[in-house]
Amino acid sequence: MDQFEQQISRLKPDFEKKLQEFVEIPSVSLLPERAPDMHRAAEYGKTLLEEAGFKAEIVKTKGYPVIWGRHIVDPAYPTLSIYNHLDVQPGGEPEWKTDPFRFVKQGDTYFGRGTTDDKGPALSAYFASKLAIAGKIPLNLQFLWELEEEIGSPSYEEFITKKRKDLQTDSVLVSDTIWLNRERPAIPYGLRGLQAFRLTLETGEKDCHSGLCGGAARNPLTELAQLISELVDGKTGKVKIPGFYQSVKRASKKEIANFVAAGFDQEKFKKAHGLKTLRFSDVADLTARIWALPTLEVHGITGGWQGPGVKTAIPPRAEAKISCRLVPDQTPEEITDLMIRTVKKLNPDVQVHIEGGLVPYLGEFKGKYADAGVLALEYAFGATPAFTREGGSIGAVVTMKKLLGVPVNFLGLSLPEHGYHAPNENFDWRQASGGMKMFLRYFELISGRK
Amino acid sequence: MDQFEQQISRLKPDFEKKLQEFVEIPSVSLLPERAPDMHRAAEYGKTLLEEAGFKAEIVKTKGYPVIWGRHIVDPAYPTLSIYNHLDVQPGGEPEWKTDPFRFVKQGDTYFGRGTTDDKGPALSAYFASKLAIAGKIPLNLQFLWELEEEIGSPSYEEFITKKRKDLQTDSVLVSDTIWLNRERPAIPYGLRGLQAFRLTLETGEKDCHSGLCGGAARNPLTELAQLISELVDGKTGKVKIPGFYQSVKRASKKEIANFVAAGFDQEKFKKAHGLKTLRFSDVADLTARIWALPTLEVHGITGGWQGPGVKTAIPPRAEAKISCRLVPDQTPEEITDLMIRTVKKLNPDVQVHIEGGLVPYLGEFKGKYADAGVLALEYAFGATPAFTREGGSIGAVVTMKKLLGVPVNFLGLSLPEHGYHAPNENFDWRQASGGMKMFLRYFELISGRK
Repeated sequence: MDQFEQQISRLKPDFEKKLQEFVEIPSVSLLPERAPDMHRAAEYGKTLLEEAGFKAEIVKTKGYPVIWGRHIVDPAYPTLSIYNHLDVQPGGEPEWKTDPFRFVKQGDTYFGRGTTDDKGPALSAYFASKLAIAGKIPLNLQFLWELEEEIGSPSYEEFITKKRKDLQTDSVLVSDTIWLNRERPAIPYGLRGLQAFRLTLETGEKDCHSGLCGGAARNPLTELAQLISELVDGKTGKVKIPGFYQSVKRASKKEIANFVAAGFDQEKFKKAHGLKTLRFSDVADLTARIWALPTLEVHGITGGWQGPGVKTAIPPRAEAKISCRLVPDQTPEEITDLMIRTVKKLNPDVQVHIEGGLVPYLGEFKGKYADAGVLALEYAFGATPAFTREGGSIGAVVTMKKLLGVPVNFLGLSLPEHGYHAPNENFDWRQASGGMKMFLRYFELISGRK
Repeated sequence: MDQFEQQISRLKPDFEKKLQEFVEIPSVSLLPERAPDMHRAAEYGKTLLEEAGFKAEIVKTKGYPVIWGRHIVDPAYPTLSIYNHLDVQPGGEPEWKTDPFRFVKQGDTYFGRGTTDDKGPALSAYFASKLAIAGKIPLNLQFLWELEEEIGSPSYEEFITKKRKDLQTDSVLVSDTIWLNRERPAIPYGLRGLQAFRLTLETGEKDCHSGLCGGAARNPLTELAQLISELVDGKTGKVKIPGFYQSVKRASKKEIANFVAAGFDQEKFKKAHGLKTLRFSDVADLTARIWALPTLEVHGITGGWQGPGVKTAIPPRAEAKISCRLVPDQTPEEITDLMIRTVKKLNPDVQVHIEGGLVPYLGEFKGKYADAGVLALEYAFGATPAFTREGGSIGAVVTMKKLLGVPVNFLGLSLPEHGYHAPNENFDWRQASGGMKMFLRYFELISGRK
């Protein structure tokens, strides 16, 4: 056990205590009733940073604030900014075996909403920074902890714009991504974008009895079902909106070959995400579809009876919750235009409500920081990472790249089996402690130390 | 004011008290957690009947019991059985302005779930029976109060079979139907049948993140939306299942002419049911479609996110709640067969769960009892009823016709604006008191009195 590992193992009780305290604040940015918890999470984050010797501030925005902490050892040293987010997904899925907002420890595995996305990785970086400060690594550190990542980062640009002058940094490290599997770390160099919509249709004022009105009354559920089937092929996922694919920059043959070589394992993927069957069976096809092609998915259809059995009323209104994952060079604006135009044509009574949008991101996988990331991962976990794209979206990445103008790199710690956005979300000490070692090594490699 | 009316007006406080007590027992047969309330409703019904001098019994079945009360004045007199139901729809719609299970009186209007369907009409008949007994009308009376009408009467046949010998009756009167409008009573001679289904599709074990899996993962919501659009035209309601209309006995030209002559008012219909627009605008077309043609409606689609905004997870399973209203000579069995066969062909992974089914009913609108109904309605309300069909279903009717073998007639009291199966359900004293007068007159007309 080297010196790092000894130091890290002593941090375990404190890491678990802090992760527990974080998880038990249900900081669900999507649910307005959680606003008080969001502010508790911000206060708690600030307290942690101050405890580690950072100058910390809760920076207000029109939405939820950003927690900003800065530790300048010497202005002559390089500065690294580490991005994580402290907001989480809701926890209402019936498959949860434990309370999503109670921290449950089973051996070295930690259950609870936010353990892997993204409170656990945030704390790994946080504890690594404490060790870096104690070990006098010649590097200035800055934390950027967002509270609106899960709702598309609507206020992050406001934060960056407001504090731009004080945020000066040489590079940004984002820790909010997922490995291919436990043996195969991944460093993404691209992220899909997003555009979400709610399609609503109101045909009446109240439930109407299908015996009394059925046949004459319009049914918003059957009309929305028909509209959905005209927007996307339900089985293959092929989007039917005219022009939807026109701006897609197809992944090159070399990229696709890299995706395949990265070791994407179809069976492990199915197992990790609990999928019975997939739409396609070819690995090249599958990786391209999750990393390099856009989607249109329906995430929920409200309206009518949700209880047991069948209540034979025709509801007055219904809503389809839809999102499109976007890839370069699609833009949220372009896709919004196409959606509005197509819906207007197919069913003019349906209202299109525009929700969060994020530009897709395509970065570089070469250079000093990318090299340091590879070495740090190899050092901490003994495995060589694959360079992949990631199918998800992190709104803040695009903003930081655009406004700070410095390299943005990714070092994530989550595994497919950690259940990102899924019930029974978890994280584990192996990834947490390995993560601390990885971050520390990364700090050293990019520091001013010769 | 005649003698009847004086007697009736004195009953008002007691009617309101008993309707309040009934409404405030949330006897929702669809919700398993309401079982204790169902049994309270049965006990309360029995108490009422005993108070009026009936010999009453709570007759157990495999499901909820039936309350049976009998008052034999003289075995030589004719016996009339009056059918109502004491179970109600759930009350969860957001449009309720008052608590659905609190009785709220505004002037002579009574709000609360079950006021018009069917506790108010049941109590009108009940108070009329008290007056009939006091007035020594030579008629034996029997009440049949069901507790499973809203879930398709699954145990009513068991009850009739069990008590058949003791239930001897000369005719049955059902009070659970709706007028055309406040000025135009209606006596239905036909009811649509019903077959409900739940279509379920499970493609995974848990929510999966659309960033991580979107493109590769199957989406049960888009697949069900596509299936629905292949079963029914979402806009016109035309059912696309091959063979669905083959057994439909089309309404005759004379019947359609009667429907039009009945005075169906499209604008009033839209207003009463809170409908913004209808699928069709021709009255002959509309009345045929709600009374004499079958339907396929979707009543709810579960699966995925139901909260505010868009949560970008792909759910592991989804369910479409569907019902078909049936008309003569369609049968639930035939429609179930067609549904299973069609779904199997369109999406073999979708499971068809068979829910309640009811045979459609087509009775007569001639004869002694029908004539008495017309006279009683004219006497009590000063308006001539139209003979129509009704688009809804009452499972018990088909069972009573089949097993008791006597005429089954309808005298309802509900109005379209009472909000059957809808939020802000209500009943009013004009219909309640007029109803008592109507029942009393009907009792006299069919009694042994010369």
